[in-house]
Amino acid sequence: MISGGVQLNKGLSIALLSTMLIGTMLGTSPVSAETQEKNNQIKNVIFMIGDGMGPSYTTALRYLKDDQSTVEMEDTGFDPYLVGMQSVYSADPFYDGKQDDEKENITDSAAAATSMSSGIKTYNGAIAVDLEQEDTETVLEVAKAKGKSTGLVATSEINHATPAAYASHEHSRKNYSEIADDYFDDLVNGKHKVDVLLGGGIDYFERKDRNLAQDFEKDGYQYVKTTDELLKADGEQILGLFAPIGLEKAIDRPQEQPSLEQMTTKAIDVLSKNENGFFLMIEGSQIDWAGHDNDIVGAMSEMEDFEKAFNKAIEFAKEDQHTLVVATADHSTGGLSIGANDVGFWDVDVIKAAKHTPDYMTRLIVEKEEDIQTVLTENIDFDVTEEEVKSVQAAIDNASKEDLFTEVDNAIEHIFDERSGTGWTTGGHTGEDVPVYAYGPGAEMFAGKIDNTDNAKNLFQILGASSSEGAELADTATNYPASIFGGFFILAVGGWLLYRNKTVH
Amino acid sequence: MISGGVQLNKGLSIALLSTMLIGTMLGTSPVSAETQEKNNQIKNVIFMIGDGMGPSYTTALRYLKDDQSTVEMEDTGFDPYLVGMQSVYSADPFYDGKQDDEKENITDSAAAATSMSSGIKTYNGAIAVDLEQEDTETVLEVAKAKGKSTGLVATSEINHATPAAYASHEHSRKNYSEIADDYFDDLVNGKHKVDVLLGGGIDYFERKDRNLAQDFEKDGYQYVKTTDELLKADGEQILGLFAPIGLEKAIDRPQEQPSLEQMTTKAIDVLSKNENGFFLMIEGSQIDWAGHDNDIVGAMSEMEDFEKAFNKAIEFAKEDQHTLVVATADHSTGGLSIGANDVGFWDVDVIKAAKHTPDYMTRLIVEKEEDIQTVLTENIDFDVTEEEVKSVQAAIDNASKEDLFTEVDNAIEHIFDERSGTGWTTGGHTGEDVPVYAYGPGAEMFAGKIDNTDNAKNLFQILGASSSEGAELADTATNYPASIFGGFFILAVGGWLLYRNKTVH
Repeated sequence: MISGGVQLNKGLSIALLSTMLIGTMLGTSPVSAETQEKNNQIKNVIFMIGDGMGPSYTTALRYLKDDQSTVEMEDTGFDPYLVGMQSVYSADPFYDGKQDDEKENITDSAAAATSMSSGIKTYNGAIAVDLEQEDTETVLEVAKAKGKSTGLVATSEINHATPAAYASHEHSRKNYSEIADDYFDDLVNGKHKVDVLLGGGIDYFERKDRNLAQDFEKDGYQYVKTTDELLKADGEQILGLFAPIGLEKAIDRPQEQPSLEQMTTKAIDVLSKNENGFFLMIEGSQIDWAGHDNDIVGAMSEMEDFEKAFNKAIEFAKEDQHTLVVATADHSTGGLSIGANDVGFWDVDVIKAAKHTPDYMTRLIVEKEEDIQTVLTENIDFDVTEEEVKSVQAAIDNASKEDLFTEVDNAIEHIFDERSGTGWTTGGHTGEDVPVYAYGPGAEMFAGKIDNTDNAKNLFQILGASSSEGAELADTATNYPASIFGGFFILAVGGWLLYRNKTVH
Repeated sequence: MISGGVQLNKGLSIALLSTMLIGTMLGTSPVSAETQEKNNQIKNVIFMIGDGMGPSYTTALRYLKDDQSTVEMEDTGFDPYLVGMQSVYSADPFYDGKQDDEKENITDSAAAATSMSSGIKTYNGAIAVDLEQEDTETVLEVAKAKGKSTGLVATSEINHATPAAYASHEHSRKNYSEIADDYFDDLVNGKHKVDVLLGGGIDYFERKDRNLAQDFEKDGYQYVKTTDELLKADGEQILGLFAPIGLEKAIDRPQEQPSLEQMTTKAIDVLSKNENGFFLMIEGSQIDWAGHDNDIVGAMSEMEDFEKAFNKAIEFAKEDQHTLVVATADHSTGGLSIGANDVGFWDVDVIKAAKHTPDYMTRLIVEKEEDIQTVLTENIDFDVTEEEVKSVQAAIDNASKEDLFTEVDNAIEHIFDERSGTGWTTGGHTGEDVPVYAYGPGAEMFAGKIDNTDNAKNLFQILGASSSEGAELADTATNYPASIFGGFFILAVGGWLLYRNKTVH
């Protein structure tokens, strides 16, 4: 079950690794710098963000996938790669008032993505700009400047906050059109920044005032709009937009819209042709959206979509041997809890009984005026009670026209929450640390308790940041004395694991 | 600020460690087994459990202690030692019905403590017994059998579920008197199991049917009941009971009741006199109690109490060099979220304004019939609004006599929740993974994603479990191929940290 974690990096022989470590520790260099360089080379970086994927979500996925015929709860695809956790707070309390947002210290996706892309703390809503609203340099931009190929993949519109913070610079995440424009207009060494853009957002690229899709096509990008077209695409640069705004949630997604795994696979296929390597950011965007909606069915469906994409990235990295994969979250959403209202059992069968999200069912009831009982019965694999049907009818009866959709959706979500024992505290984000998973060369840099800014600092160091800013950031990331201790601690971990393996047969 | 993490283990020279690692990796043994043994020796184990201390609690502590004059949020005492997370589910769904409890897969403290003390999954309520209600062997018992001194420290009654699962065996956590009896009656090699017992619980030890305190005294234990007496105690075995049931929460605690730090210091002082070393379990018991009560003031006060005790344990371990310190939680409690009701700011100043817990204030209002306005004004450092005073009055007016205390308490807690942006979903436990912190020799065994049973499995291995059960458990803990991978990964971490330190000045 942890077979994901077992393959050794064939490029590193035991003897060589030993010698390198000794050399490093004693300050001598029995192996040439070139050999070390070659063996340590990180050619590709796949950075994955489960938007909203706090510790309750990653644990919930394990509950969901548990083989209930065994006492043990089996590991998820992520588990074997857990290396630590990161703090994710934003810097709004220190904002000087130029931006008219509220005082906040719980991050949004824009500030968190900016921290992870640029290595600085900033205010909520900022897209790769700092507290002074000055543009920051992003790891994607540095990768491009270094001759690597680059990609952004998301299940939201591709110009949404998280991907945006890697390849555009705006004082507000709400500048959707400007962000899409940036993707085309902002150049690195005279070239477009992002070679592969896959996600939703047709409405922002095929606008009345400007047709960016056409612009990209003129510059040689393949423009695809369905799963089939994506799978057949063979260009070096691809713009793939599969929905007007965001894609449907995985459990509701029509075949014409690709899975995150399919987009991940295509992005890797295309980008890995560059001998200089690639940087690819992949977002499981709608874990967060389901969290905002307090929709456990949608959240778990999106978690599974993201996990499959992660597994695919790991599969590539294991084969390739020069690829670093990091997966983490920007924050948690909704105050999700496994267990609620004093109940000590989280009933995943309730969640697995759903064939579609409450949103989907609500559309049938509210927009298509279908019968409540029929919709619930056809879309849920448990016997819906009369009382539950009535609760949805009550929502219709009592809601204003404006709130109708929301109230019906809430009523259906409430059925799943009550039956499963799922808790929520907010329609917004929450502040707890989030897990960090990493695999491949450089994975060690993300271990222990890190801050979200450390992701960029580490990547700048890995990429050999071109700008003074990047270099500076990489420097400040280093806590020297702690590093010495950490080095010895972690050498001991390695020694122990090898020792245990050797002796305890 | 991370000075806690900087001191090197002086006993391990760089060259020696290198040679040891090379030997281990190549399967050769350039250093004698004895030398390795001596250098790797783990003489003492301090295992700390923050009851209910899930990731929201550890992050909340960081928010609370943040120096708000800087953009960065400073690390807590725990942060530098984060090594991973553990899953904490219990095995109730598989229970065959012998115990009349409900179907549960979210653990309670008893099942979780049994997993951590004995390496097995069991049902909620079980005190060191398995699903068949057979006694398990605990790490404390093995330590005692190996000639080590042993201790249990808690801020609850010392016969509460968590400490109980280390030194007694009962089919139900509710058997409080029987658990206390076990501490005296169950012997290991003809001796009492636990040399130092510090916490609350006078009512269970000075009973009408049996005076266990007297029994312990007759067998040579010093019996102390105040902080002063504890500080002066100089025996080799101590029974310290400082309250009828649990101690007061740290923020309310009178001077006669010791802090967890004071109890920790005394326990270490006494136990460390044994040349064979010691095993000490320390519980921050009432983080959980505050969580059940949905009391953010009490929870944060208990987190600070626990953090200070942790810092003390780390201080000792750094000096001693042969002490392993592990700190983790048994589960999370209350569905606590940093942020609630769509607010993106968690206002710690509100929490810091409290001079006492809502419980304490409620006692004054309900039991001493003091004036609401006066009590709130005297015990809270912000201007309580008229509306807030009225909300407490309304609780008094509307509550039944039976619910009066709870309702008033809830009303005061609500003031703090609303003002700070704190969310709760339950009066029970929640299922998310909890952080694991570790320091000292053997710390590496607790790294990555582990299960709560792995704690006992690791400790059995460290202690060289005497019984077949312990040995068996230690064996099943080992995932060999994953260990090989983990070994190399973690060696790489160490190498990188040392390399970074050496080169990036």
